Amino acid sequence: MRFASDNASGAAPEVLAAVVAANAGHERSYGADAAMARVTSLVRDLFEAPEAAVHLVATGTAANALAIATHCPPWGAVFCHAHAHVAEDECNAPEFYSGAKLVLVPGEHGKITPATLDATLARIGTGGVHGVQRGMLTLTNVTEAGTVYTPAEIATLTGLAKQHDLPCHLDGARFANALVATGATPAEMTWRAGIDVLSLGGTKNGCLGVEAVVLFDPAKSWELELRRKRGGHLFSKHRFLSAQMEAWLQGDLWLRLATQANAMGQRLAQGLQARDVTVPNSPANMMFPEWSPGTHDRLEAAGAVYYRMPAPEGRERARLVTSWSTTEADVDRFLALF
Amino acid sequence: MRFASDNASGAAPEVLAAVVAANAGHERSYGADAAMARVTSLVRDLFEAPEAAVHLVATGTAANALAIATHCPPWGAVFCHAHAHVAEDECNAPEFYSGAKLVLVPGEHGKITPATLDATLARIGTGGVHGVQRGMLTLTNVTEAGTVYTPAEIATLTGLAKQHDLPCHLDGARFANALVATGATPAEMTWRAGIDVLSLGGTKNGCLGVEAVVLFDPAKSWELELRRKRGGHLFSKHRFLSAQMEAWLQGDLWLRLATQANAMGQRLAQGLQARDVTVPNSPANMMFPEWSPGTHDRLEAAGAVYYRMPAPEGRERARLVTSWSTTEADVDRFLALF
Amino acid sequence: MRFASDNASGAAPEVLAAVVAANAGHERSYGADAAMARVTSLVRDLFEAPEAAVHLVATGTAANALAIATHCPPWGAVFCHAHAHVAEDECNAPEFYSGAKLVLVPGEHGKITPATLDATLARIGTGGVHGVQRGMLTLTNVTEAGTVYTPAEIATLTGLAKQHDLPCHLDGARFANALVATGATPAEMTWRAGIDVLSLGGTKNGCLGVEAVVLFDPAKSWELELRRKRGGHLFSKHRFLSAQMEAWLQGDLWLRLATQANAMGQRLAQGLQARDVTVPNSPANMMFPEWSPGTHDRLEAAGAVYYRMPAPEGRERARLVTSWSTTEADVDRFLALF
Amino acid sequence: MRFASDNASGAAPEVLAAVVAANAGHERSYGADAAMARVTSLVRDLFEAPEAAVHLVATGTAANALAIATHCPPWGAVFCHAHAHVAEDECNAPEFYSGAKLVLVPGEHGKITPATLDATLARIGTGGVHGVQRGMLTLTNVTEAGTVYTPAEIATLTGLAKQHDLPCHLDGARFANALVATGATPAEMTWRAGIDVLSLGGTKNGCLGVEAVVLFDPAKSWELELRRKRGGHLFSKHRFLSAQMEAWLQGDLWLRLATQANAMGQRLAQGLQARDVTVPNSPANMMFPEWSPGTHDRLEAAGAVYYRMPAPEGRERARLVTSWSTTEADVDRFLALF
Repeated sequence: MRFASDNASGAAPEVLAAVVAANAGHERSYGADAAMARVTSLVRDLFEAPEAAVHLVATGTAANALAIATHCPPWGAVFCHAHAHVAEDECNAPEFYSGAKLVLVPGEHGKITPATLDATLARIGTGGVHGVQRGMLTLTNVTEAGTVYTPAEIATLTGLAKQHDLPCHLDGARFANALVATGATPAEMTWRAGIDVLSLGGTKNGCLGVEAVVLFDPAKSWELELRRKRGGHLFSKHRFLSAQMEAWLQGDLWLRLATQANAMGQRLAQGLQARDVTVPNSPANMMFPEWSPGTHDRLEAAGAVYYRMPAPEGRERARLVTSWSTTEADVDRFLALF
Repeated sequence: MRFASDNASGAAPEVLAAVVAANAGHERSYGADAAMARVTSLVRDLFEAPEAAVHLVATGTAANALAIATHCPPWGAVFCHAHAHVAEDECNAPEFYSGAKLVLVPGEHGKITPATLDATLARIGTGGVHGVQRGMLTLTNVTEAGTVYTPAEIATLTGLAKQHDLPCHLDGARFANALVATGATPAEMTWRAGIDVLSLGGTKNGCLGVEAVVLFDPAKSWELELRRKRGGHLFSKHRFLSAQMEAWLQGDLWLRLATQANAMGQRLAQGLQARDVTVPNSPANMMFPEWSPGTHDRLEAAGAVYYRMPAPEGRERARLVTSWSTTEADVDRFLALF
Repeated sequence: MRFASDNASGAAPEVLAAVVAANAGHERSYGADAAMARVTSLVRDLFEAPEAAVHLVATGTAANALAIATHCPPWGAVFCHAHAHVAEDECNAPEFYSGAKLVLVPGEHGKITPATLDATLARIGTGGVHGVQRGMLTLTNVTEAGTVYTPAEIATLTGLAKQHDLPCHLDGARFANALVATGATPAEMTWRAGIDVLSLGGTKNGCLGVEAVVLFDPAKSWELELRRKRGGHLFSKHRFLSAQMEAWLQGDLWLRLATQANAMGQRLAQGLQARDVTVPNSPANMMFPEWSPGTHDRLEAAGAVYYRMPAPEGRERARLVTSWSTTEADVDRFLALF
Repeated sequence: MRFASDNASGAAPEVLAAVVAANAGHERSYGADAAMARVTSLVRDLFEAPEAAVHLVATGTAANALAIATHCPPWGAVFCHAHAHVAEDECNAPEFYSGAKLVLVPGEHGKITPATLDATLARIGTGGVHGVQRGMLTLTNVTEAGTVYTPAEIATLTGLAKQHDLPCHLDGARFANALVATGATPAEMTWRAGIDVLSLGGTKNGCLGVEAVVLFDPAKSWELELRRKRGGHLFSKHRFLSAQMEAWLQGDLWLRLATQANAMGQRLAQGLQARDVTVPNSPANMMFPEWSPGTHDRLEAAGAVYYRMPAPEGRERARLVTSWSTTEADVDRFLALF
């Protein structure tokens, strides 16, 4: 009954096996390993993007910060949701790497809307040299609220950004979960919807620690290389990043892992609803239902593990996350407590 | 015959096994894993430093940049050897993290001397507000030239720095090799010799990718935590860093691995010298002999792998590095080519 | 009828005369001029702060950015009003100098309230290492909306900040106007109300270009010196900054200039109200009444100069600012247009 | 007998008068003043550069730091003389603004030579992603040693830099003195010799505090605007910068002032040599002769003011600088002490 986070899970057996296999013998360091070339090919094939550049790092914060710094100047505004991970959970890493200012766009359920984005775009960058200039848009899918953007919704938002010639980034820490939840292809969710650069997260979905920065236009690939090194994010024994990413993408493992995480999420959400618990729209693997502190205490006493957060009217919100390793038995034991 | 770098080796079996074992079940993320507590205990015991704070990152550049940023203000001078890794091989990461200026101290064979340090200390920080202020000292052991500082030499240099109240850092990417080469204990090589903060490198000596920043005075531990997160270097599945470091330190594995690397280094150096090749003083696992381009070509054609660098008088320098995985057979096959 | 900004005025004759007088002969550079010592004495006397450190720069953005950088670490949150000058009109200078994140506190009429500050303080810094830490508070008086904080209001807000041990900054680009509007003494408006560092603005109120950063606790004076130099804000011919500030503070010139600016502001506000124009609370020298675009056009055609800003319901907002050089005739000519 | 620095002089009467005249009436702020348009025209005419963009700041450090940041990425090397002002006297401002690394190029008498530049260019940027990349060249004329580059010498050095496509900056804190010393035209000394961006210094040569950043290719003009604002260097009452620069450039005042400064420098140098004092090559207004500490004491006791610096063999070096305001009487009184 461990629903604290998908990063509390271990790695999928296939990914771990690939790391073990990658250990044999000598290998070129710093990204010149043979597996990295295969990773790039895999990403290009899966995203139908034959020119895409791919760079691996070990953390999602690094991926986001490097992607942002490569696309927004120090005097730019990064438009992001008010509760985006880049805004709330990265301790200024995006600002540190880019020098830019995060401008918070409101929106219910973790989602920027065309109206809120349009209003924010209209408000920023109109003061000449005195204020920040419009810089870029960053979206998150699956959002921090557990909701999901469809490709069409993304395309609408990037369309607004592109009216101002802004590059668009997608924080895909749970990208595979978003694909599974929407049925979209990788291309539909990214470059076909106006995304220029993607943080493709492996860590939360079955890897030990690997994320890919995917540049659909490779023009900034060398700049990203240099920023990665300057940030201390270039692995010497890079083969161990490549091996994870290769195994994860191969044979659709990433989608199978996300399918399991989402299926368990839906089992959990539907089970709670069947027990008269309101669960806000949560089509992937994360949800935020509320109940009384007493209920929380009872669930924890029974062994459930998850985060509690303040909520209105004397209630507390639960943050429940399922992962590739969550089982039906985990979910059902938890549901039986209601 | 692969002598290109110790980071071209894989991980030691014990370290890899620990990573595999760490994969079981759920574990708290972001450094709250149980293994991290054991790592801290191990480091404190091995370094006879019961108060030391320990933070893990995945790359040596990250360890150095964070250690420096935590000890030098943006208007400070970081005194380092003219060919230090922080100066030549980290693409401005120390400057990026700290804002400080690296001030290069000359010295033969990769080593700062009391005279060169003293002269540089005397030259910097005398211009009032106009120039950078004296900030900190950083040494490297094993040096980039393959030479080694003894604890007494380190103490002399840190003593000069401490006359100006400067904190002292040791880049120990090959710290275990330096211990083995000198016979010093971890404490003798660090805090007893005036070192305040250590980058303790596991990656080159048998790990997949892990380095510890060891603060002998834990006062700046929370600052380092925040800088690590802000740099994108805090692992969510941190257990995989802890597992490596724990296995590596346990039962003196780190010293046994370094002993093998150094022994192969000495076998190589002595073998070359017996074949009339001059090998500059190289007491650890790295050496820089020179020979003609024709000899280089012949060695490479025979399967030897290493870096070639320009040298005077029509010769070229070889950079030969042995690792924990180098065997006597590797060395002897190479020597047989002479 | 020039009400665009108080920085469209020239310098007061006394200030200009002091600059001319300062030109005679040689003088020590970089702040070692004799006038600077007198400026420090004047500030200490006027603020009843015998230990205060004073540093001069030429722009308000420099003063604010340096004050903030000296009091907030790169992983800190700077709590400021949502429409503060530091947030909207300084093109990321505070972030550039400090690395910190500006966290916007809402509030009507340009003023942070205890409730909005308390709620924001409660929300930030609770996520451990993942989010920014509470860093400092910065207030503005006169506010960007033309309203004014009383010393008691400031004390309440700084009191909330100090419950979290946060240093408190006052952006006093129009500090003299705030003093005149409230009748407070310099000490009452600053350190007695919990302000640790003040940007004391001379430029808008009769100088050519000079602002003082006043540190009521001088402990960070040397750090500010170094940050000033590193930012390129240390004047070689510093005497010309000192001369302005000395003349401006001497004999209460600064207060007399602000008294004139405010008196003209009140004449304007009351005159408009007498002509049935609603003028939001504007006790100093800046106000934001609204009227129809047609009226704006008519006023401009008649020679009035001011900024127009969007407003609801088909109206437009005027930004009217009076200065030390505004005359009764200016105001009355404008009023006669209504 | 004040030879400490040309920034210990006041402003030339014409410049001061222009500041006084500029005070009349209201004027648009932030660089939109009418005088600024005239300054741009003047610079374009004088430099025969009809497209040049001109931006004013108040300090030389700001001009240099902004010029460098606009032309060198954070992973770049700024090649500069080992004793350049940007390297020794700006407290990391160039690094702060740019993120880049200053790479020191040796050379006698303050001058980079083709040989030393070529060797340094060959050494840097060869390590792939690990080291900094070649970024830009910055020269200083008049140099910190009081020597002067001819246009031909500059062209040779920029030619080497341009073999690597590097932009070239000239720190012209004493640009007018260099023109006078060489007889070169502004165009010959800058863009015709391969200079892309110039810090044109007015402060040391008769202004109160104004420097122009001149971009011969205006493509980066808007970026420089934004960086200037973000650095806090955009003056609200910008007219006072424009007025200085306009008066200084008009009617060749700048050259007449420099002519006087250089003439007094030559009178001083020749007078010393006539008295058997060795004066290293000093064709402009700054020189560094050496004498015994006793002689220094005697000169100071007689009222001479200048900087003393360590020198070999028990001697001390004098730094003697003449300015536009130095008179023959000043020089002759000093010479009479020998």
